[in-house]
Amino acid sequence: MEHRVIKTALLSVSDKTGIVEFAQQLVARGIHILSTGGTAKLLRQHDIAVTDVSEHTGQEEIMDGRVKTLHPKIHGGILARRDQDQAVMAAQGITPIDMVVVNLYPFAETVARPDCSHEDAVENIDIGGPTMVRAAAKNHRDVTIIVNADDYPAVLAEMAANEGSLTLETRFDLAIKAFEHTAQYDGMIANYFGAKLAGAESKFPRTFNAQFRKKQDLRYGENSHQSAAFYAEHKPLEASVATATQLQGKELSFNNIADTDAALECVKSFTQPACVIVKHANPCGVAIGESITDAYQRAFKTDPTSAFGGIIAFNRELDAATAKAIVEQQFVEVIIAPSVSADAQAMVATKQNVRLLACGEWPVERAASLDFKRVNGGLLVQDSDQGAITAADLKVVTAVAPTEAQLEDLLFCWKVAKFVKSNAIVYAKDGMTIGVGAGQMSRVYSAKIAGIKAADENLEVAGSVMASDAFFPFRDGIDAAAAAGIKAIIQPGGSIRDEEIIQAANEHGIAMVFTGMRHFRH
Amino acid sequence: MEHRVIKTALLSVSDKTGIVEFAQQLVARGIHILSTGGTAKLLRQHDIAVTDVSEHTGQEEIMDGRVKTLHPKIHGGILARRDQDQAVMAAQGITPIDMVVVNLYPFAETVARPDCSHEDAVENIDIGGPTMVRAAAKNHRDVTIIVNADDYPAVLAEMAANEGSLTLETRFDLAIKAFEHTAQYDGMIANYFGAKLAGAESKFPRTFNAQFRKKQDLRYGENSHQSAAFYAEHKPLEASVATATQLQGKELSFNNIADTDAALECVKSFTQPACVIVKHANPCGVAIGESITDAYQRAFKTDPTSAFGGIIAFNRELDAATAKAIVEQQFVEVIIAPSVSADAQAMVATKQNVRLLACGEWPVERAASLDFKRVNGGLLVQDSDQGAITAADLKVVTAVAPTEAQLEDLLFCWKVAKFVKSNAIVYAKDGMTIGVGAGQMSRVYSAKIAGIKAADENLEVAGSVMASDAFFPFRDGIDAAAAAGIKAIIQPGGSIRDEEIIQAANEHGIAMVFTGMRHFRH
Repeated sequence: MEHRVIKTALLSVSDKTGIVEFAQQLVARGIHILSTGGTAKLLRQHDIAVTDVSEHTGQEEIMDGRVKTLHPKIHGGILARRDQDQAVMAAQGITPIDMVVVNLYPFAETVARPDCSHEDAVENIDIGGPTMVRAAAKNHRDVTIIVNADDYPAVLAEMAANEGSLTLETRFDLAIKAFEHTAQYDGMIANYFGAKLAGAESKFPRTFNAQFRKKQDLRYGENSHQSAAFYAEHKPLEASVATATQLQGKELSFNNIADTDAALECVKSFTQPACVIVKHANPCGVAIGESITDAYQRAFKTDPTSAFGGIIAFNRELDAATAKAIVEQQFVEVIIAPSVSADAQAMVATKQNVRLLACGEWPVERAASLDFKRVNGGLLVQDSDQGAITAADLKVVTAVAPTEAQLEDLLFCWKVAKFVKSNAIVYAKDGMTIGVGAGQMSRVYSAKIAGIKAADENLEVAGSVMASDAFFPFRDGIDAAAAAGIKAIIQPGGSIRDEEIIQAANEHGIAMVFTGMRHFRH
Repeated sequence: MEHRVIKTALLSVSDKTGIVEFAQQLVARGIHILSTGGTAKLLRQHDIAVTDVSEHTGQEEIMDGRVKTLHPKIHGGILARRDQDQAVMAAQGITPIDMVVVNLYPFAETVARPDCSHEDAVENIDIGGPTMVRAAAKNHRDVTIIVNADDYPAVLAEMAANEGSLTLETRFDLAIKAFEHTAQYDGMIANYFGAKLAGAESKFPRTFNAQFRKKQDLRYGENSHQSAAFYAEHKPLEASVATATQLQGKELSFNNIADTDAALECVKSFTQPACVIVKHANPCGVAIGESITDAYQRAFKTDPTSAFGGIIAFNRELDAATAKAIVEQQFVEVIIAPSVSADAQAMVATKQNVRLLACGEWPVERAASLDFKRVNGGLLVQDSDQGAITAADLKVVTAVAPTEAQLEDLLFCWKVAKFVKSNAIVYAKDGMTIGVGAGQMSRVYSAKIAGIKAADENLEVAGSVMASDAFFPFRDGIDAAAAAGIKAIIQPGGSIRDEEIIQAANEHGIAMVFTGMRHFRH
């Protein structure tokens, strides 16, 4: 181990969490503290002796603090190679700075303030801080850089165990965190100003800068010849597969995570107890019910074949009765719910391979986020599909209006169709999917599949309602629905043949409502 | 316009493209040039008078250049607010620096060198450069920052037109480029070292940092209530939808781009003239042929209904005959090919709405890249699926081996199945798809759909071959294939019931080969 006893530390932090206690520990070790501005003031209030950077450099702080640490005595002290720069340090009166504790005021929080002006945003761009962070990180062979208060305890513990020094391994790890911090910082600045270019009417910046934190390496990707990892946002906006805790079971696979996301996001659509079963990225059974046990049993009935090895999501705490119903009835890859009761967990424990996840509660008002679609050589970025409608948004276009019960089923069905890959056709009755036609290149085949699957499972289509994620281009889809016994239809409308399609519905005595909103999902 | 005549410029560039000519123009305007290191040397070789930064600051360059520009005279000169810092500048002998021309040696190129050691990588991290870039960008109200040689001509032209100054608008634009440059730089460093953490056996860094350049804003996303933009990689590795030039037609939509990517990547799989028609993210018709006209006509035959409004990709230059065949036969959203002949372009011009794209030629050896799948709160990152097999990789598992013709069709069919959403079943004969079963939650329904679609188009399945993107879990898929007249099957193998499935094939006299490689695509 390279032994570098820390003698001088420079502390200048925006996030002051724990800085006083940390500094006290450093002082107790005889470490000399350099500091500046608010940090220096805070430390002195706690009777911690600090030397101002301006005193150290002999250069007063100028331009309201724009220039204070950008000085050879600071950066020579940070960047000096301890084994070859002794002479120049002595000649120039530069003393080594062995530890730099600096973090940056989150630019995102500055610009999120409603009253933040362009000048405020610009003034908040830190120049000296990132320079010290980067210099110390570069010279991690000799210098420790700390950008996160969470690291203080481990650093102190390691110093205590190592006669006041840290291992190179720790310094390297901290150095990477430093570059992660500055990369994120400048990425936020580039995103913010990049969306404010002169003449730009777009909310999308000129360059799209993103940073994600690795949650776990995966055994492989979508297929075993692809390697993969799962990354999370730094601050996920709501409960999701990325916030979930795995309570038991085999390691999550790439496909497990993708399918769990689809199931969970779909089940979030419902306020009543609901269950969504996903297979190969599509819901193969969805139901609401008096309880989640009831919802599960009805969702399962839609397509027991596909449900085998599926992913099951709930919008209520997983209880023992539901857990028992699942593990006794079917092979399941993943179960996810906002929470899991102790009894339910014990029940799932009888099948040790089942991955059981608790993701936490989500808010009623869903968070806006960005969705990405990768293409070779590029990235499509869009708002995630948060579109939602209520009964009030519907326009009845047929002579017959849907009954109250049909209306409920139409809205249920529409929520499911949003999560079925396009072209999507969903049949439903009494808050349960009756047939799901997914992922076809022409709409009429999706309708056919929904019917075939319902028939194969001995489910009665007659009296069901139907949702279509996009408008019908021709009347054939309506005619086929009528033949299958569909009584009400929900669809966006907007085809140039809408009149013809409404006419077809009227001929069959079908009630049809238009949402005015499409839900393609590919 | 705020009028800031540029009097002093600091030039220190890694990319020396055009720097001599640019400096000559600055000098011709009477601008005083500060410089350092290799840039100063180069300018002097061209008889351009420059002042060394060390002479300007009175501080010699120390520690082999680690500390040269990190000095109050430089950063005070850059960061000074011209309207309020005059006194301190005068008192401290700081003169304004009005223009900073700095770019950073691409860290990615350093670490891509096969002999790059950890120390080399660390030594290549620039500290002074990014600090000047960031300081000048922050103070863009008064200072011009240039990080890209491509900007020299426009800057000189604007100076010529504005008595030696630039508009605030230009300075702001250049400032954003500066933060884009530093964000990308630190993101590369964080990615590189973040994958080299002690004990890490993963190639995926602790944080995933990405930057994309906006290619175009889109009218909307997957649906009209979602806003969207299309971003490209800074250096796309090969011809793709991101490198494509639009020769005519309506603006590309989000779904156009996604589908064009699917079609183009699929058609790249083939060496013979080939055509792929995509609808809703799935190939609905694929064929190879003597010519691309032939390939197109055969691809179209698979599913003319779905081909309506489809995306058509070719792996040869689009010629007039093929263009004519398309526009006379069908409504098409997008046509993409490596190049387009003048005659073909004139032919497509008869349909002004058709989006016509030329993407350039791609290499035989495909570039490795990363694929992303967005989940709420996170990102799945994986190697893109570059898996490919040849006849030599196939294992014949049945009593009957495929004939030479069947083998060709099996390999053709397998390449198509890779691009069909899972579960994927593809029937093919004579280098043409006969039926495509896409996106089903259970494999047997994909097989059913392939058969139904073939029958609906009056295509003869008997004598065809079949590809399945993943193994068959049960023999029912084989039995159904036999009933449809399938004579040979290609699939990964690897089911616990492989013996039973091979037995089923043998009973039906079907030839079956295992690839040992799965191609899930969701």
